[in-house]
Amino acid sequence: MAHIAVQNGVPGIRSLVLFRPESGKYLYELAQVLLRGGDSTLSEAERELIAAYASSKNQCLFCMSSHAAAARYLFEDKKDIVDLVLDNYHSASITDKLKSLLNIAGKVQISGKAVNENDVVAARKHGATDREIHDTVLIAATFAMFNRYVDGLASLTPTDPVVYEEMGKRLGETGYTLPKTQ
Amino acid sequence: MAHIAVQNGVPGIRSLVLFRPESGKYLYELAQVLLRGGDSTLSEAERELIAAYASSKNQCLFCMSSHAAAARYLFEDKKDIVDLVLDNYHSASITDKLKSLLNIAGKVQISGKAVNENDVVAARKHGATDREIHDTVLIAATFAMFNRYVDGLASLTPTDPVVYEEMGKRLGETGYTLPKTQ
Repeated sequence: MAHIAVQNGVPGIRSLVLFRPESGKYLYELAQVLLRGGDSTLSEAERELIAAYASSKNQCLFCMSSHAAAARYLFEDKKDIVDLVLDNYHSASITDKLKSLLNIAGKVQISGKAVNENDVVAARKHGATDREIHDTVLIAATFAMFNRYVDGLASLTPTDPVVYEEMGKRLGETGYTLPKTQ
Repeated sequence: MAHIAVQNGVPGIRSLVLFRPESGKYLYELAQVLLRGGDSTLSEAERELIAAYASSKNQCLFCMSSHAAAARYLFEDKKDIVDLVLDNYHSASITDKLKSLLNIAGKVQISGKAVNENDVVAARKHGATDREIHDTVLIAATFAMFNRYVDGLASLTPTDPVVYEEMGKRLGETGYTLPKTQ
Protein backbone atom coordinates (compact mmCIF):
# COMPACT_ATOMS: atom_id res chain seq x y z
CA MET A 1 0.00 0.00 0.00
CA ALA A 2 1.22 3.48 -0.83
CA HIS A 3 2.45 5.70 2.01
CA ILE A 4 -0.17 8.36 1.17
CA ALA A 5 -3.82 8.17 0.15
CA VAL A 6 -3.66 7.79 -3.62
CA GLN A 7 -6.35 6.35 -5.88
CA ASN A 8 -6.67 2.58 -5.44
CA GLY A 9 -5.37 0.36 -8.23
CA VAL A 10 -3.56 3.11 -10.17
CA PRO A 11 0.07 2.07 -10.68
CA GLY A 12 3.34 3.92 -10.10
CA ILE A 13 3.87 7.56 -10.94
CA ARG A 14 0.40 7.83 -12.47
CA SER A 15 -1.13 7.57 -8.98
CA LEU A 16 1.22 10.27 -7.67
CA VAL A 17 0.65 12.81 -10.42
CA LEU A 18 -3.09 12.36 -9.97
CA PHE A 19 -2.57 13.13 -6.26
CA ARG A 20 -0.61 16.31 -7.10
CA PRO A 21 -1.12 17.35 -10.73
CA GLU A 22 0.47 20.81 -10.20
CA SER A 23 3.93 19.20 -9.96
CA GLY A 24 2.97 16.16 -12.06
CA LYS A 25 2.39 18.42 -15.06
CA TYR A 26 6.06 19.43 -15.21
CA LEU A 27 7.29 15.90 -14.49
CA TYR A 28 5.43 14.61 -17.54
CA GLU A 29 6.51 17.56 -19.71
CA LEU A 30 10.12 16.97 -18.69
CA ALA A 31 9.87 13.25 -19.59
CA GLN A 32 8.24 14.17 -22.91
CA VAL A 33 10.92 16.66 -23.97
CA LEU A 34 13.78 14.38 -22.93
CA LEU A 35 12.45 11.04 -24.17
CA ARG A 36 10.33 12.15 -27.14
CA GLY A 37 11.67 15.56 -28.19
CA GLY A 38 12.00 15.41 -31.97
CA ASP A 39 15.30 17.25 -32.32
CA SER A 40 17.45 14.62 -30.57
CA THR A 41 20.10 12.60 -32.43
CA LEU A 42 19.49 9.75 -29.99
CA SER A 43 16.52 7.65 -31.08
CA GLU A 44 13.47 7.39 -28.82
CA ALA A 45 14.35 3.71 -28.32
CA GLU A 46 17.90 4.60 -27.20
CA ARG A 47 16.61 7.23 -24.78
CA GLU A 48 14.09 4.80 -23.27
CA LEU A 49 16.93 2.28 -22.93
CA ILE A 50 19.00 4.81 -20.96
CA ALA A 51 15.95 5.46 -18.74
CA ALA A 52 15.39 1.71 -18.18
CA TYR A 53 19.10 1.18 -17.47
CA ALA A 54 19.25 4.01 -14.90
CA SER A 55 16.08 2.66 -13.26
CA SER A 56 17.49 -0.88 -13.13
CA LYS A 57 20.61 0.45 -11.37
CA ASN A 58 18.27 2.12 -8.84
CA GLN A 59 16.33 -1.16 -8.53
CA CYS A 60 13.08 0.66 -9.24
CA LEU A 61 11.01 -2.21 -10.62
CA PHE A 62 8.10 -0.05 -11.81
CA CYS A 63 10.22 2.43 -13.82
CA MET A 64 12.62 -0.24 -15.07
CA SER A 65 9.78 -2.47 -16.30
CA SER A 66 7.74 0.29 -17.91
CA HIS A 67 10.65 1.98 -19.70
CA ALA A 68 12.14 -1.37 -20.75
CA ALA A 69 8.73 -2.17 -22.24
CA ALA A 70 8.66 1.20 -24.04
CA ALA A 71 12.18 0.55 -25.37
CA ARG A 72 11.18 -2.94 -26.59
CA TYR A 73 8.18 -1.48 -28.38
CA LEU A 74 10.33 1.22 -30.03
CA PHE A 75 13.22 -1.10 -30.99
CA GLU A 76 10.66 -3.23 -32.89
CA ASP A 77 12.49 -6.22 -34.44
CA LYS A 78 15.62 -5.46 -32.41
CA LYS A 79 13.76 -5.56 -29.11
CA ASP A 80 15.96 -8.37 -27.71
CA ILE A 81 18.65 -5.73 -27.25
CA VAL A 82 16.82 -4.32 -24.24
CA ASP A 83 17.20 -7.34 -21.97
CA LEU A 84 20.75 -7.93 -23.14
CA VAL A 85 21.65 -4.35 -22.17
CA LEU A 86 19.94 -4.61 -18.79
CA ASP A 87 21.79 -7.87 -18.15
CA ASN A 88 25.22 -6.56 -19.24
CA TYR A 89 25.49 -3.76 -21.79
CA HIS A 90 29.21 -4.41 -22.38
CA SER A 91 28.43 -7.63 -24.25
CA ALA A 92 25.28 -6.37 -26.04
CA SER A 93 25.40 -5.65 -29.78
CA ILE A 94 24.99 -1.88 -29.51
CA THR A 95 27.30 0.88 -30.76
CA ASP A 96 30.37 1.90 -28.79
CA LYS A 97 28.82 5.36 -28.57
CA LEU A 98 25.73 4.01 -26.81
CA LYS A 99 27.93 1.91 -24.51
CA SER A 100 29.93 5.01 -23.56
CA LEU A 101 26.69 6.91 -22.84
CA LEU A 102 25.36 4.03 -20.70
CA ASN A 103 28.65 4.17 -18.79
CA ILE A 104 28.01 7.86 -18.07
CA ALA A 105 24.38 7.14 -17.07
CA GLY A 106 25.63 4.47 -14.65
CA LYS A 107 28.06 6.94 -13.09
CA VAL A 108 25.30 9.55 -12.69
CA GLN A 109 23.19 6.94 -10.89
CA ILE A 110 25.93 6.66 -8.24
CA SER A 111 26.63 10.41 -7.99
CA GLY A 112 27.14 13.38 -10.29
CA LYS A 113 30.72 13.58 -9.09
CA ALA A 114 31.38 10.00 -10.26
CA VAL A 115 31.39 11.20 -13.90
CA ASN A 116 34.98 12.03 -14.78
CA GLU A 117 36.83 13.56 -17.71
CA ASN A 118 37.80 10.10 -19.04
CA ASP A 119 34.15 9.05 -19.29
CA VAL A 120 33.38 12.15 -21.33
CA VAL A 121 36.50 11.83 -23.51
CA ALA A 122 35.58 8.20 -24.28
CA ALA A 123 32.03 9.19 -25.27
CA ARG A 124 33.35 11.96 -27.51
CA LYS A 125 35.88 9.57 -29.11
CA HIS A 126 32.96 7.35 -30.10
CA GLY A 127 31.15 10.28 -31.69
CA ALA A 128 28.91 11.53 -28.89
CA THR A 129 28.09 15.24 -29.11
CA ASP A 130 27.83 17.68 -26.21
CA ARG A 131 24.07 17.61 -26.58
CA GLU A 132 24.01 13.79 -26.38
CA ILE A 133 26.25 13.83 -23.31
CA HIS A 134 24.05 16.52 -21.74
CA ASP A 135 20.86 14.60 -22.43
CA THR A 136 22.29 11.32 -21.14
CA VAL A 137 23.31 12.97 -17.86
CA LEU A 138 19.93 14.67 -17.52
CA ILE A 139 17.94 11.52 -18.38
CA ALA A 140 19.89 9.50 -15.80
CA ALA A 141 19.50 12.32 -13.25
CA THR A 142 15.78 12.57 -14.01
CA PHE A 143 15.36 8.89 -13.27
CA ALA A 144 17.26 9.30 -9.99
CA MET A 145 14.25 11.52 -9.23
CA PHE A 146 11.43 9.45 -10.74
CA ASN A 147 12.71 6.24 -9.13
CA ARG A 148 12.87 7.87 -5.69
CA TYR A 149 9.46 9.45 -6.13
CA VAL A 150 7.77 6.19 -7.12
CA ASP A 151 9.47 4.03 -4.46
CA GLY A 152 9.72 6.71 -1.75
CA LEU A 153 5.93 6.86 -1.60
CA ALA A 154 5.57 3.08 -2.11
CA SER A 155 3.29 3.49 -5.10
CA LEU A 156 1.69 0.40 -6.63
CA THR A 157 4.09 -1.77 -8.65
CA PRO A 158 2.21 -4.26 -10.86
CA THR A 159 3.79 -7.70 -11.18
CA ASP A 160 2.03 -8.91 -14.34
CA PRO A 161 4.34 -8.54 -17.40
CA VAL A 162 1.28 -8.00 -19.61
CA VAL A 163 0.53 -4.74 -17.76
CA TYR A 164 3.98 -3.41 -18.64
CA GLU A 165 3.74 -4.58 -22.23
CA GLU A 166 0.55 -2.54 -22.64
CA MET A 167 2.17 0.39 -20.85
CA GLY A 168 5.21 0.20 -23.16
CA LYS A 169 2.96 0.25 -26.21
CA ARG A 170 1.06 3.29 -24.90
CA LEU A 171 4.29 5.13 -24.00
CA GLY A 172 5.76 4.23 -27.39
CA GLU A 173 2.72 5.43 -29.29
CA THR A 174 1.52 8.45 -27.36
CA GLY A 175 4.43 9.47 -25.13
CA TYR A 176 4.01 11.27 -21.82
CA THR A 177 0.78 13.11 -21.19
CA LEU A 178 -0.67 13.90 -17.79
CA PRO A 179 -3.57 11.53 -17.11
CA LYS A 180 -6.89 13.35 -16.78
CA THR A 181 -8.36 10.47 -14.77
CA GLN A 182 -6.92 7.09 -13.82
CA MET B 1 35.78 23.24 -16.41
CA ALA B 2 32.38 21.87 -17.36
CA HIS B 3 32.23 18.60 -19.34
CA ILE B 4 30.32 20.31 -22.16
CA ALA B 5 30.65 23.71 -23.84
CA VAL B 6 28.54 25.97 -21.66
CA GLN B 7 28.80 29.75 -21.35
CA ASN B 8 31.97 30.77 -19.49
CA GLY B 9 31.57 32.12 -15.99
CA VAL B 10 27.90 31.19 -15.55
CA PRO B 11 27.52 29.07 -12.40
CA GLY B 12 25.75 25.77 -11.76
CA ILE B 13 22.40 24.85 -13.21
CA ARG B 14 22.04 28.29 -14.79
CA SER B 15 24.77 27.40 -17.32
CA LEU B 16 23.04 24.09 -18.11
CA VAL B 17 19.55 25.47 -18.66
CA LEU B 18 21.03 28.12 -20.95
CA PHE B 19 22.65 25.26 -22.92
CA ARG B 20 19.33 23.42 -23.19
CA PRO B 21 16.37 25.70 -22.36
CA GLU B 22 13.78 23.22 -23.72
CA SER B 23 14.34 20.96 -20.70
CA GLY B 24 15.49 23.80 -18.43
CA LYS B 25 12.07 25.40 -18.68
CA TYR B 26 10.38 22.47 -16.92
CA LEU B 27 13.18 22.11 -14.36
CA TYR B 28 12.64 25.71 -13.26
CA GLU B 29 8.86 25.39 -13.30
CA LEU B 30 9.11 22.25 -11.17
CA ALA B 31 11.36 24.02 -8.65
CA GLN B 32 8.98 26.99 -8.59
CA VAL B 33 5.84 24.93 -7.90
CA LEU B 34 7.55 22.80 -5.23
CA LEU B 35 9.56 25.49 -3.44
CA ARG B 36 7.36 28.56 -3.98
CA GLY B 37 3.85 27.22 -4.69
CA GLY B 38 1.52 29.32 -2.54
CA ASP B 39 -0.84 26.53 -1.43
CA SER B 40 1.73 24.63 0.67
CA THR B 41 1.45 24.35 4.45
CA LEU B 42 5.26 24.14 4.62
CA SER B 43 6.82 27.60 4.56
CA GLU B 44 9.12 28.57 1.70
CA ALA B 45 11.97 28.65 4.22
CA GLU B 46 11.20 25.08 5.36
CA ARG B 47 11.06 23.83 1.78
CA GLU B 48 14.39 25.48 0.92
CA LEU B 49 15.83 23.87 4.05
CA ILE B 50 14.72 20.42 2.86
CA ALA B 51 16.32 21.17 -0.54
CA ALA B 52 19.57 22.29 1.11
CA TYR B 53 19.59 19.26 3.40
CA ALA B 54 19.05 16.79 0.53
CA SER B 55 21.82 18.54 -1.45
CA SER B 56 24.20 18.41 1.51
CA LYS B 57 23.60 14.65 1.79
CA ASN B 58 24.49 14.38 -1.92
CA GLN B 59 27.56 16.56 -1.29
CA CYS B 60 26.50 18.91 -4.08
CA LEU B 61 28.25 22.09 -2.98
CA PHE B 62 26.56 24.37 -5.52
CA CYS B 63 22.98 23.31 -4.71
CA MET B 64 23.63 23.02 -0.98
CA SER B 65 25.17 26.51 -0.80
CA SER B 66 22.57 28.23 -2.97
CA HIS B 67 19.52 26.67 -1.29
CA ALA B 68 21.01 27.13 2.19
CA ALA B 69 21.46 30.81 1.27
CA ALA B 70 17.84 31.01 0.07
CA ALA B 71 16.68 29.36 3.32
CA ARG B 72 18.74 31.82 5.42
CA TYR B 73 17.21 34.75 3.53
CA LEU B 74 13.69 33.38 4.06
CA PHE B 75 14.16 32.46 7.74
CA GLU B 76 15.13 36.11 8.35
CA ASP B 77 15.95 36.53 12.06
CA LYS B 78 15.96 32.75 12.58
CA LYS B 79 18.52 32.17 9.85
CA ASP B 80 20.99 30.48 12.24
CA ILE B 81 18.71 27.44 12.11
CA VAL B 82 19.96 26.58 8.62
CA ASP B 83 23.54 25.79 9.57
CA LEU B 84 22.44 24.01 12.74
CA VAL B 85 20.16 21.75 10.67
CA LEU B 86 22.87 21.06 8.09
CA ASP B 87 25.26 20.20 10.91
CA ASN B 88 22.84 17.94 12.80
CA TYR B 89 19.11 18.49 12.53
CA HIS B 90 18.38 16.25 15.54
CA SER B 91 19.75 18.88 17.91
CA ALA B 92 18.41 21.95 16.05
CA SER B 93 15.51 23.94 17.54
CA ILE B 94 12.97 23.02 14.87
CA THR B 95 9.61 21.28 15.26
CA ASP B 96 9.37 17.51 15.59
CA LYS B 97 7.29 17.55 12.42
CA LEU B 98 10.09 19.17 10.43
CA LYS B 99 12.60 16.73 11.95
CA SER B 100 10.44 13.79 10.85
CA LEU B 101 10.21 15.24 7.33
CA LEU B 102 13.99 15.74 7.20
CA ASN B 103 14.34 12.10 8.24
CA ILE B 104 12.20 11.10 5.24
CA ALA B 105 14.19 13.40 2.92
CA GLY B 106 17.40 11.76 4.13
CA LYS B 107 16.00 8.31 3.39
CA VAL B 108 14.94 9.39 -0.12
CA GLN B 109 18.47 10.60 -0.75
CA ILE B 110 19.72 7.03 -0.15
CA SER B 111 16.94 5.31 -2.10
CA GLY B 112 13.18 5.49 -2.45
CA LYS B 113 12.96 2.04 -0.92
CA ALA B 114 14.73 3.25 2.23
CA VAL B 115 11.56 5.13 3.30
CA ASN B 116 9.57 2.74 5.47
CA GLU B 117 6.17 2.70 7.14
CA ASN B 118 7.69 3.76 10.49
CA ASP B 119 9.15 6.92 8.97
CA VAL B 120 5.74 7.87 7.62
CA VAL B 121 3.90 6.95 10.84
CA ALA B 122 6.33 9.12 12.82
CA ALA B 123 5.78 12.09 10.49
CA ARG B 124 2.02 11.68 10.75
CA LYS B 125 2.22 11.43 14.55
CA HIS B 126 3.91 14.83 14.56
CA GLY B 127 1.14 16.32 12.44
CA ALA B 128 2.47 15.94 8.89
CA THR B 129 -0.24 15.65 6.24
CA ASP B 130 -0.17 13.40 3.18
CA ARG B 131 0.50 16.45 1.06
CA GLU B 132 3.49 17.46 3.23
CA ILE B 133 4.88 13.91 3.11
CA HIS B 134 4.36 13.85 -0.67
CA ASP B 135 6.08 17.19 -1.18
CA THR B 136 9.00 16.25 1.07
CA VAL B 137 9.60 13.04 -0.90
CA LEU B 138 9.33 14.88 -4.21
CA ILE B 139 11.58 17.77 -3.13
CA ALA B 140 14.25 15.31 -1.95
CA ALA B 141 13.84 13.26 -5.16
CA THR B 142 14.03 16.43 -7.27
CA PHE B 143 17.33 17.32 -5.65
CA ALA B 144 18.65 13.82 -6.34
CA MET B 145 18.16 14.98 -9.94
CA PHE B 146 19.39 18.59 -9.71
CA ASN B 147 22.49 17.55 -7.75
CA ARG B 148 23.41 14.88 -10.33
CA TYR B 149 22.73 17.26 -13.21
CA VAL B 150 24.92 20.02 -11.80
CA ASP B 151 27.82 17.77 -10.74
CA GLY B 152 27.47 15.17 -13.53
CA LEU B 153 28.31 17.88 -16.08
CA ALA B 154 30.88 19.50 -13.76
CA SER B 155 29.24 22.91 -13.98
CA LEU B 156 30.93 25.89 -12.35
CA THR B 157 30.75 25.93 -8.53
CA PRO B 158 31.64 29.37 -7.13
CA THR B 159 33.64 29.35 -3.90
CA ASP B 160 32.96 32.92 -2.72
CA PRO B 161 30.23 32.94 0.00
CA VAL B 162 29.14 36.41 -1.17
CA VAL B 163 28.05 34.93 -4.52
CA TYR B 164 25.72 32.50 -2.72
CA GLU B 165 24.40 35.20 -0.41
CA GLU B 166 23.34 37.25 -3.44
CA MET B 167 21.91 34.12 -5.08
CA GLY B 168 19.91 33.30 -1.93
CA LYS B 169 18.48 36.83 -1.87
CA ARG B 170 17.46 36.58 -5.55
CA LEU B 171 15.92 33.11 -5.07
CA GLY B 172 14.14 34.30 -1.94
CA GLU B 173 12.75 37.41 -3.62
CA THR B 174 11.97 36.29 -7.16
CA GLY B 175 11.94 32.48 -7.06
CA TYR B 176 12.79 30.29 -10.03
CA THR B 177 12.54 31.81 -13.47
CA LEU B 178 14.40 30.59 -16.52
CA PRO B 179 17.26 33.00 -17.24
CA LYS B 180 16.88 34.77 -20.59
CA THR B 181 20.62 35.45 -20.74
CA GLN B 182 23.42 34.82 -18.27
